[in-house]
Amino acid sequence: MVDKYWISLVILSCFAMGNELKAQTRARDLGIEIGILPTGKLNSITDVEGVLVGHLTKIQGKDIRTGVTAILPHRGNLFQEKTPAAVFVGNGFGKLAGSTQIEELGNLESPIVLTNTLGIAAGMEGIIEYTLELPGNEAVQSVNAVVGETNDGYLNDIRGQHVRKEDVLSAIRAAKEGRVEEGNVGAGTGTVCFGFKGGIGTSSRKLPESLGGYTVGVLVQTNFGGVLQINGVPVGEELGQYSFKNHLESADGSCMIIVATDAPVNERNLKRIAQRAMMGLARTGGIASNGSGDYVIAFSNHSQNRIAHQATTLDLLQNEMLRNDDMSPLFLATIEATEEAIINSLFAANDMEGKEGRIVKSLPLPRVMEIIKSFGNKD
Amino acid sequence: MVDKYWISLVILSCFAMGNELKAQTRARDLGIEIGILPTGKLNSITDVEGVLVGHLTKIQGKDIRTGVTAILPHRGNLFQEKTPAAVFVGNGFGKLAGSTQIEELGNLESPIVLTNTLGIAAGMEGIIEYTLELPGNEAVQSVNAVVGETNDGYLNDIRGQHVRKEDVLSAIRAAKEGRVEEGNVGAGTGTVCFGFKGGIGTSSRKLPESLGGYTVGVLVQTNFGGVLQINGVPVGEELGQYSFKNHLESADGSCMIIVATDAPVNERNLKRIAQRAMMGLARTGGIASNGSGDYVIAFSNHSQNRIAHQATTLDLLQNEMLRNDDMSPLFLATIEATEEAIINSLFAANDMEGKEGRIVKSLPLPRVMEIIKSFGNKD
Amino acid sequence: MVDKYWISLVILSCFAMGNELKAQTRARDLGIEIGILPTGKLNSITDVEGVLVGHLTKIQGKDIRTGVTAILPHRGNLFQEKTPAAVFVGNGFGKLAGSTQIEELGNLESPIVLTNTLGIAAGMEGIIEYTLELPGNEAVQSVNAVVGETNDGYLNDIRGQHVRKEDVLSAIRAAKEGRVEEGNVGAGTGTVCFGFKGGIGTSSRKLPESLGGYTVGVLVQTNFGGVLQINGVPVGEELGQYSFKNHLESADGSCMIIVATDAPVNERNLKRIAQRAMMGLARTGGIASNGSGDYVIAFSNHSQNRIAHQATTLDLLQNEMLRNDDMSPLFLATIEATEEAIINSLFAANDMEGKEGRIVKSLPLPRVMEIIKSFGNKD
Amino acid sequence: MVDKYWISLVILSCFAMGNELKAQTRARDLGIEIGILPTGKLNSITDVEGVLVGHLTKIQGKDIRTGVTAILPHRGNLFQEKTPAAVFVGNGFGKLAGSTQIEELGNLESPIVLTNTLGIAAGMEGIIEYTLELPGNEAVQSVNAVVGETNDGYLNDIRGQHVRKEDVLSAIRAAKEGRVEEGNVGAGTGTVCFGFKGGIGTSSRKLPESLGGYTVGVLVQTNFGGVLQINGVPVGEELGQYSFKNHLESADGSCMIIVATDAPVNERNLKRIAQRAMMGLARTGGIASNGSGDYVIAFSNHSQNRIAHQATTLDLLQNEMLRNDDMSPLFLATIEATEEAIINSLFAANDMEGKEGRIVKSLPLPRVMEIIKSFGNKD
Repeated sequence: MVDKYWISLVILSCFAMGNELKAQTRARDLGIEIGILPTGKLNSITDVEGVLVGHLTKIQGKDIRTGVTAILPHRGNLFQEKTPAAVFVGNGFGKLAGSTQIEELGNLESPIVLTNTLGIAAGMEGIIEYTLELPGNEAVQSVNAVVGETNDGYLNDIRGQHVRKEDVLSAIRAAKEGRVEEGNVGAGTGTVCFGFKGGIGTSSRKLPESLGGYTVGVLVQTNFGGVLQINGVPVGEELGQYSFKNHLESADGSCMIIVATDAPVNERNLKRIAQRAMMGLARTGGIASNGSGDYVIAFSNHSQNRIAHQATTLDLLQNEMLRNDDMSPLFLATIEATEEAIINSLFAANDMEGKEGRIVKSLPLPRVMEIIKSFGNKD
Repeated sequence: MVDKYWISLVILSCFAMGNELKAQTRARDLGIEIGILPTGKLNSITDVEGVLVGHLTKIQGKDIRTGVTAILPHRGNLFQEKTPAAVFVGNGFGKLAGSTQIEELGNLESPIVLTNTLGIAAGMEGIIEYTLELPGNEAVQSVNAVVGETNDGYLNDIRGQHVRKEDVLSAIRAAKEGRVEEGNVGAGTGTVCFGFKGGIGTSSRKLPESLGGYTVGVLVQTNFGGVLQINGVPVGEELGQYSFKNHLESADGSCMIIVATDAPVNERNLKRIAQRAMMGLARTGGIASNGSGDYVIAFSNHSQNRIAHQATTLDLLQNEMLRNDDMSPLFLATIEATEEAIINSLFAANDMEGKEGRIVKSLPLPRVMEIIKSFGNKD
Repeated sequence: MVDKYWISLVILSCFAMGNELKAQTRARDLGIEIGILPTGKLNSITDVEGVLVGHLTKIQGKDIRTGVTAILPHRGNLFQEKTPAAVFVGNGFGKLAGSTQIEELGNLESPIVLTNTLGIAAGMEGIIEYTLELPGNEAVQSVNAVVGETNDGYLNDIRGQHVRKEDVLSAIRAAKEGRVEEGNVGAGTGTVCFGFKGGIGTSSRKLPESLGGYTVGVLVQTNFGGVLQINGVPVGEELGQYSFKNHLESADGSCMIIVATDAPVNERNLKRIAQRAMMGLARTGGIASNGSGDYVIAFSNHSQNRIAHQATTLDLLQNEMLRNDDMSPLFLATIEATEEAIINSLFAANDMEGKEGRIVKSLPLPRVMEIIKSFGNKD
Repeated sequence: MVDKYWISLVILSCFAMGNELKAQTRARDLGIEIGILPTGKLNSITDVEGVLVGHLTKIQGKDIRTGVTAILPHRGNLFQEKTPAAVFVGNGFGKLAGSTQIEELGNLESPIVLTNTLGIAAGMEGIIEYTLELPGNEAVQSVNAVVGETNDGYLNDIRGQHVRKEDVLSAIRAAKEGRVEEGNVGAGTGTVCFGFKGGIGTSSRKLPESLGGYTVGVLVQTNFGGVLQINGVPVGEELGQYSFKNHLESADGSCMIIVATDAPVNERNLKRIAQRAMMGLARTGGIASNGSGDYVIAFSNHSQNRIAHQATTLDLLQNEMLRNDDMSPLFLATIEATEEAIINSLFAANDMEGKEGRIVKSLPLPRVMEIIKSFGNKD
């Protein structure tokens, strides 16, 4: 719940300091506590030990507003030490590369790259070059590059295909632990969400020991529409900005969602986790509209369950796995972290001017906090 | 939004009149308006012209608290005039009968029957007898009976398998147009939702003409857990009753969701609609926990697209279909109607005492309305 | 390959001894060696250590020609010690019960029962009663009964629904190790395949140690059509009996296929195995016609990977699993055993007279062997 | 069936003329008649009116043995006039681009491009450039490029990524009606199948009017293993070249299969058709081994069912569709044409020397025909 006095203070601060300070504001810093589970240390996908994130932001001239975000499941050679993984398709109007092999083999062997819709090929080229050149991969002739996208063509000259292989390599090589930059960065540079500036957002949940002690981290690239709700408060309606307002159809969009965990779960349970991420998106007011490419990629980097690319024939994998009965807390963690990651992407984003002089305003945070306060518990 | 003065009045009324009046209370009657789209005339699945609903409630002795609910897509011979249909599995810990044939052939040829987990066989027997005996079906040798369930074993002696073929036939034969009874009736007699008494709920949305003018109706059998949220207000937390409270795991459950529409949509788009219903469930705080059997069955009874069982070989079906681009309003309608149907099931349910003297209390409506009021917009 | 001299001898014997001896003839006994891998000891699904099969054959009066076949993955309490399992739908015009829970949870917790299309409910009742009454299951309130079917309505009064819960219990209780009766028994009593009498068939493959040493066993209930091919020989065309002859459509049918293995494979790889069984069916000339309910259920009873129903919360399963790279021999074994099981079902079946005096002739074995001989390698 | 005298003649001819004449030999020309249905005029995917095929073969130096094959559903602007389509995954160890959008929206909006595993990105770039530059597509910002692949890395320097966007554009622009070149061309330039030189193959079936009169055409890119069987004859075993010989594992491979039809079938029935193509592959002895990327893409270019990209909101599509009951002949046609297309790819291919001096021999046709003759019907 939101403490009202503290919110007032924050709102005043925001007014006083202007938009400058808005960059990298996070919902929780403003007192918005989504869900009932505690966050990880950084409230970030990188709370899952070993996960790395890198951005390449490409803002050039008046028309180029795009970029690349790379997520690496662990620090090792991802091809040689694959991780169990799964994909869930929330709505498949998108160009995600690599999904069928993940589904068939149950694992991930590359960085996950996010970029724009017409940059998938560049994303693949970057991942392939990165993988072929890694020491130990000299004989590799097949790489399942996993690349997701949303369409930033409102602000970005997407037809110009400005994302290049080199940009993708830069994002992969920039990947690091620790705090993840949010908002108008990387693959979120040019995206629009609920009619406001979207972008990259992240969040995490750390289960209490009694529920397993595992961590779930989520990173999102938000570019979708609907009727915005923040922690249950109908902010979109209050602001008068939402899909189907005046009973007219409105623009579509997409959301890429990456879920990481250190829990020992196999590909089937990762798919179930991935499916729950869409329930987190639903809680923000997203509707997975027709034109949305809403995909969730979930992986577990639990060390014992990594899959060596090279192994002796007929040797058995020795895995440890959570029982189905113990999955529900991970489901809740995924839902909460996804909801918060989306909200974080909105809070962190700044106004952006792009292609053809179009401007997308960021969420008006002071007004939003007023609304949230007005809906807060007064008792 | 909730008008606060009116709510106060209703709350006072509720206090004054006690629980008696609670039966069949509906969220909207108390001023809770979920979503942005208008409801149909009755705010019920039966707003979709032709859809019929029937209940058989079985409350006997101290231990039998179960029943059957039947949904018929239209008044005709359902086997001879099949309807396009689809199933989406939100979480498959359940015994839904008939799903693979719906998926393969894209249609529904029987009433949909809801009952308890160990009553699926009786459900099938009832549907089969009903179908074989319909005039015109004398030569029928194969019927795809569609039967869903949730587990009412907390209040009901489920191992006793008290649902009989005759009960199923009674529910089917009782099916009618008009207002649908909600709460502790039919297949909802013994169910539990968010720790409170669940049951049957229904709601609908009627799209404005500018969005197509079609109707979407939803009926739910609620028996699941999570962290209850009513129109965005964290009621579960405020009441101190929710899953994982004190970081302990809690009981599972299930939700059957039936979505009907008169929109001309084929089986693929019905599956997309069905998938959105889970987003409505998410908005109530449901998490599709491991033990949940969360299934959505969606059908369109648009008259031109019905599929005659008997036809001349090689004759072509002449269908009319909404374009993908025009689906999004139906998605939103499904999400809203599902959310409201679930809340309606809780509002309509009464306290229930059952097996082994167990008591499940209904949602404490006066207190709930106070909470909702306290979170209401004060501006 | 077929040794021609030996075949001649067998053919002469068949002629001499008449149809009496035909019962339980197996393709391999007549020199037909399908595939390149060796069979298990009995060339039967029961070669997978622990698998039990039971039949209940119901031939009564002139019109009842049906039955039940039960397959048990192991001798223990199947509910308390679940086995990893998967379902693949070759063509879903069928009423298979239990598929979505297998898909969601990745396991099987009941006997698999095969019967006729309108007997699914009885099959569920039998499995539920069997399970509820097993010692140790006193608190069980939910059972995922897995029941498959094909439609024996050409020879059997299927509308009479003559399969009863007691029949199902009898088949389950009759389940045993060792040789499996084939042909007109159990769920194969009234089935028709390629226009000839079908029934139950079984076969197995035992991988050489260099390929893992695992066993794959298959049991089929054959009731489908197409253009019969036996070990590559176009027997259907030569006999002048096949679907679409004279360019007319012909009757549909179905095939239930059960694949058992002792290999340590999880649910994902079991699904891949299940998918290969349809490739074995394809090799017999089956086409998975529109009206077919072609389902494959695959399970592994590898002892270490069984899943205890009751376990301490958060305890991890310790599994061992074949790597993806080592799966291909199991795929080939599945294809070969399925092909041979189908052919065995035809070879073992006898003529059957049933409903309305209809007669379905068995495959004319002497003529068939002549044809096969005429297509044999002459060099 | 094969006429033995004529075969003898052909075999003599082959001997006399050497390998030169082998190019573009087709199975049916040698008297091998697969299946019971008649072929289309050219026995080619281009028998489906409007379908175009183009190749770009890239043989350079000693190490580059690769190429591109493009299949266009019709002559118009594919983006503006989309076709119903579906994908079936036989085995998903592959990098197919575009599958999830086809699944979600049920249609195809680009040429289908086939190339090598590391050329998917180039394939997408080519399709995107082709599409963006087509007159009428000036505002297009999103293209679902559909690109399939098999791994030609045994003969081709695949790590060099020699397929370029320009090559893809060349293949698309070369697409034409009429006879399709088979064997070592386009995407089949460097492939290996059953241990012999594979490549591109095609075949078709034209249903008799009594079964609908529709045409089904198939094109394959063959690069897979197993135990080769030609029209039922165990050629692989007779030649002593097959997977798992001497009980050793052997190399994997893949098969891309494109199925075109003019029948009025929607995306669901196209998926069923696609699934049958794997049954055709099974009949050649393929096993969909672990390492295979076996994908089937099926589309219908039936003119009335094309989907305009631009349309008036809420206008309904007016479709005509075959009933489920009339699908089976199309299933059989697909199975037969796929089997024959694969055999054609082998018959048409020539020996190829490539990377590191490796040589892959083509199928030894004279010996193969001898084998087939020896297994022929002698009566």
